[in-house]
Amino acid sequence: MKRAYNFNAGPSALPLPVLQRAQEELLNFQNTGMSVMELSHRSKEYDEVHNKAKQLLRKLMNIPDTHDILFLQGGASLQFSMVPMNLLHEGKVANYVLTGAWSEKALKEAKKIGETHVAASSKEANYTHIPALEHIQLSERTAYLHITSNNTIFGTQWHEFPDLPVDLIADMSSDILSREVDVKKFALIYAGAQKNLGPSGVTVVIIRKDLLENIPDHLPTMLNYNTYSSSNSLYNTPPTFAIYMLSLVLEWVDEQGGISIIEKRNKEKADILYRCIDESKGFYSPHAEKGSRSFMNVTFTLPNDELTKTFLAEAKERGFVGLAGHRSVGGCRASIYNAVPLEACEALADFMREFQQRFI
Amino acid sequence: MKRAYNFNAGPSALPLPVLQRAQEELLNFQNTGMSVMELSHRSKEYDEVHNKAKQLLRKLMNIPDTHDILFLQGGASLQFSMVPMNLLHEGKVANYVLTGAWSEKALKEAKKIGETHVAASSKEANYTHIPALEHIQLSERTAYLHITSNNTIFGTQWHEFPDLPVDLIADMSSDILSREVDVKKFALIYAGAQKNLGPSGVTVVIIRKDLLENIPDHLPTMLNYNTYSSSNSLYNTPPTFAIYMLSLVLEWVDEQGGISIIEKRNKEKADILYRCIDESKGFYSPHAEKGSRSFMNVTFTLPNDELTKTFLAEAKERGFVGLAGHRSVGGCRASIYNAVPLEACEALADFMREFQQRFI
Repeated sequence: MKRAYNFNAGPSALPLPVLQRAQEELLNFQNTGMSVMELSHRSKEYDEVHNKAKQLLRKLMNIPDTHDILFLQGGASLQFSMVPMNLLHEGKVANYVLTGAWSEKALKEAKKIGETHVAASSKEANYTHIPALEHIQLSERTAYLHITSNNTIFGTQWHEFPDLPVDLIADMSSDILSREVDVKKFALIYAGAQKNLGPSGVTVVIIRKDLLENIPDHLPTMLNYNTYSSSNSLYNTPPTFAIYMLSLVLEWVDEQGGISIIEKRNKEKADILYRCIDESKGFYSPHAEKGSRSFMNVTFTLPNDELTKTFLAEAKERGFVGLAGHRSVGGCRASIYNAVPLEACEALADFMREFQQRFI
Repeated sequence: MKRAYNFNAGPSALPLPVLQRAQEELLNFQNTGMSVMELSHRSKEYDEVHNKAKQLLRKLMNIPDTHDILFLQGGASLQFSMVPMNLLHEGKVANYVLTGAWSEKALKEAKKIGETHVAASSKEANYTHIPALEHIQLSERTAYLHITSNNTIFGTQWHEFPDLPVDLIADMSSDILSREVDVKKFALIYAGAQKNLGPSGVTVVIIRKDLLENIPDHLPTMLNYNTYSSSNSLYNTPPTFAIYMLSLVLEWVDEQGGISIIEKRNKEKADILYRCIDESKGFYSPHAEKGSRSFMNVTFTLPNDELTKTFLAEAKERGFVGLAGHRSVGGCRASIYNAVPLEACEALADFMREFQQRFI
């Protein structure tokens, strides 16, 4: 079997050793005579899986004791609502920085819950960059400041985070675990798993514990962060297999040497592609401005739609998967999450150069 | 490898051929060079999986065109809130029949949303039976009548459904697909997958389409049934692997000959255990009254707590998994969902008789 060059934006590539391990023990988890999917979520075997995932995440991201780790379902999209339901209190204003389609969606959901304010936006510039930190203008009575740390669709990423006297909340769905982050600077971090953490179906929330004290009682039980915090995310049946896969992915990151090593490798991978783009002298034009380039999603277009189409068709034939841009913006996008090997980026860069040779 | 006798209440046993198939193609789904977990949810390969699951469920349960099938996350527990958020309109009263802990939880969540009424309850009788249909007393201005078709904790099951001029809603988490049900009699059916449908992490909702027209616009997007209905449950990334497993389980049911064959087998399995209990002359006493016995969860106690404890300990040693009753009620419980083979029930009955011999 030949592994595909998988550049999917999510669900996306998983580390091969993780898949192999899952395959190996799929019918018989630790000599239980059962699949991990068949274990009770109240069993000691599953409990170990569940807690290992939490502990490894805490270790790898260096999450301080001031913060709790929760496992939820519903993806980042449900967090767009849960964040304001839990943290946008009466009389306060939720602040959002708009850097792309996902932050717009987060803002849209917050508007249904309470008062909001756009603290900065690069929408006018078609989201080609992250607003400068000094351009962020907070409202009065700020509940929190929400950012999207990496923008999959436009291929931009925050390389420095705001350091303001306000609770900072980040949707890190598409770059969590890809680089070192100072978790204690954040009030809340959330991430759907399907990019760097595992398969789709589990959402990680990292929340500063003091925030749990002021959550309104009247919230539906499953939409209250306290339900997850007070039950070790076992109030009801969690997505056990997705959490098991998360634990395997975290073990793999640990075996690689932790996030610092992964980060270095991710930068090398991104460099390979951005260098190819920069050296193409305009044949490949990147969507993101240089200072805001994402190390996770490399977005670019070719001189015209026809060529972009031909490029995507040929790339597909050569075994490159998932290079079409998001259906809302078109163009090309290479998503190079943690599990995408360096070789895949080299192969793509080679193909891009070869394609350019033929078409200029 | 010896397969465990898995009597877990959920997550629970999966059909062995389903696990084998999942294992076989885990690294390379249909020659894509990717795991099914690595496929984009917008790819044609995943689309086929997704739609096959829907089509097979429609075929097997004979779901009429008047009803839509949705895939959600969050388990039945999130449906406890979503049902009233979507369907308990201003000025109306949500009616609940209480038959156990799960219907109590469903009622509790509905109370947070609007006006409620207990239409019948067997709580006073410690939930040993399902209330007689003629004892159901609807409120005025009824929004809907909610029932829990099978009660995992107490081991009771509805064997006949109310036929009243009201929208009937059923939590079928623990007996969906286990017996033939006339879907058109229900306004809405919901079920967490982790008993008869697959692993945990996906929730199936079957909803009569006309109900979608009156859902309030102000609901959070991810909590509005219309979001799922209008996007083929692909508004955001669905739990793709859980849905893939669901599709394999449905294929397996189809290969077995459909629900009627499964139902017959389930009755045989339950008979084996209830006969053993009835013939024990009181050594094993069932929790459920005869007319309300569940074919999915067989609950019983021994003459005293000491013996119950010894029984559970010995059973565990013999390789019977998951026989302890729910932590809220104690005693013993054998969950015998679709994927539990007849032989497992026979082996358990043999052990029960042998144990009784030694202890009377």
